[in-house]
Amino acid sequence: MASSYKDLKAMDRNSIRAAIRGGAYRSHTAGLAPKVLQSNLAILPERYALDFMRFCQRNPKPCPLSGVSDTGNPMMFTLGHDIDIRTDVPAYNIYRNGKLSDTVSDIADIWQDDLVAFALGCSFTFEHALMHSGVELWHIENNTTVPMFRSNIETVPSGPFHGKMVVSMRAVPANQLELVSGISRRFPHAHGGPVHTGDPAQIGIKDIASPEWGDPAPVPDGHVTVFWACGVTPQVAIEQAGLPICITHKPGHMLITDVPEDAENPIIQNSRPQTTGFDQ
Amino acid sequence: MASSYKDLKAMDRNSIRAAIRGGAYRSHTAGLAPKVLQSNLAILPERYALDFMRFCQRNPKPCPLSGVSDTGNPMMFTLGHDIDIRTDVPAYNIYRNGKLSDTVSDIADIWQDDLVAFALGCSFTFEHALMHSGVELWHIENNTTVPMFRSNIETVPSGPFHGKMVVSMRAVPANQLELVSGISRRFPHAHGGPVHTGDPAQIGIKDIASPEWGDPAPVPDGHVTVFWACGVTPQVAIEQAGLPICITHKPGHMLITDVPEDAENPIIQNSRPQTTGFDQ
Repeated sequence: MASSYKDLKAMDRNSIRAAIRGGAYRSHTAGLAPKVLQSNLAILPERYALDFMRFCQRNPKPCPLSGVSDTGNPMMFTLGHDIDIRTDVPAYNIYRNGKLSDTVSDIADIWQDDLVAFALGCSFTFEHALMHSGVELWHIENNTTVPMFRSNIETVPSGPFHGKMVVSMRAVPANQLELVSGISRRFPHAHGGPVHTGDPAQIGIKDIASPEWGDPAPVPDGHVTVFWACGVTPQVAIEQAGLPICITHKPGHMLITDVPEDAENPIIQNSRPQTTGFDQ
Repeated sequence: MASSYKDLKAMDRNSIRAAIRGGAYRSHTAGLAPKVLQSNLAILPERYALDFMRFCQRNPKPCPLSGVSDTGNPMMFTLGHDIDIRTDVPAYNIYRNGKLSDTVSDIADIWQDDLVAFALGCSFTFEHALMHSGVELWHIENNTTVPMFRSNIETVPSGPFHGKMVVSMRAVPANQLELVSGISRRFPHAHGGPVHTGDPAQIGIKDIASPEWGDPAPVPDGHVTVFWACGVTPQVAIEQAGLPICITHKPGHMLITDVPEDAENPIIQNSRPQTTGFDQ
């Protein structure tokens, strides 16, 4: 039986993941299971995994690594007690040779023994903290997607992975700038502090009203444009690398973990390797 | 010409690294080049690198990754402008099949095209911050090595890497406990906050006066034993894995980087791949 977003809003994270795993829910996860870390997803063959992991280490703001599976084992045991990455994300994008070839609701049938799954922190975490501190976020209040732009900031390359950093923009009242920077810096596993504040042209953005991803958002008088590194950055780097196969979450359709948003590290206590549900 | 510790204390980090690279200084680096990150070192063959990097990601407190080289390229370009990992550490331990086989002052002659160098943050960083805040550290004032113990805390395994966490102990006045925890938590790239506070027996330590590494330190009245994850943990995990070859720094003889100790991330601005000094 299908579940609605409203149904899931009332559920705890285990029930939400069960609904997703069972195929009852295939939509976005914004606002669900507050207080736990949600993650972006990139799954790729092991022969690219070391280079990709180095890319993440070198670019921690756009690519804040929150978890890495063992090769071929879909259980993300450092992020939760029963997370099967083949079924526990509402929607997946499958790329073949760098091109989007399919969007599906589970990947059990295309999982391979050589795949490695990477979970990457996402901006939901620091957005929740900002809202709790009384900062208004226009895109959330207006139910749109945050505007995202390709900047002229180069990522630090690793193997086939490179390219410009993608950034998201939130307009912040000038008198809240320090508060907003300070709060987001406290979440290194969710993009951390801003990468740029002020004139968009300085980071190569010509028209703030025309984002390349997401929806436009106004910059009211007395507000300053603030830019954060964005999780679309690794997706673009992976697409450009043209891997034979790569699987990501469908944007907005995240992995819901068991890790508290305010955890010092994105690792659950006493993580032990798990093979439950793993086709040995 | 040999340089003394006193000579190096007066130098900037570039001159210090030049003295080390030239073979003029082969001793410990504690207290040198304050304000920049110093790092532990582990160099191992690429076929173990992904598992080791996953081990670090899963155990960020004992293994805070601060930099990873490209395979076969000894230039640690994300940590500094001219850091050649073959020559820029004062002393190296070489392990073969899990056993210490040699201690040398450079590894240019045994560097291999398949080696990957990992830099890991060290406790010097948070110790400096503690001292700046007026916290007295007995082992530093008495010129001894911090006491270290094998705890009963299990690391999260990855491939051949596993084992108990090694912890360091500092006795802290009860009224400074909160201050000390808060300060060290601000340095996730230098072991972060404590892993245990109070009764040593709770983490499997039988005799606080008998450390397994380093020197004993007193626990005066009114002081509490505070334990941090220790960079010896990955060294023990690597030894136990019995790799055919592995190279680490000699304890206390660290890599001095260009990264400020208070940087949000251990990456220098505008890092670009470097091959200067690299035998192509």
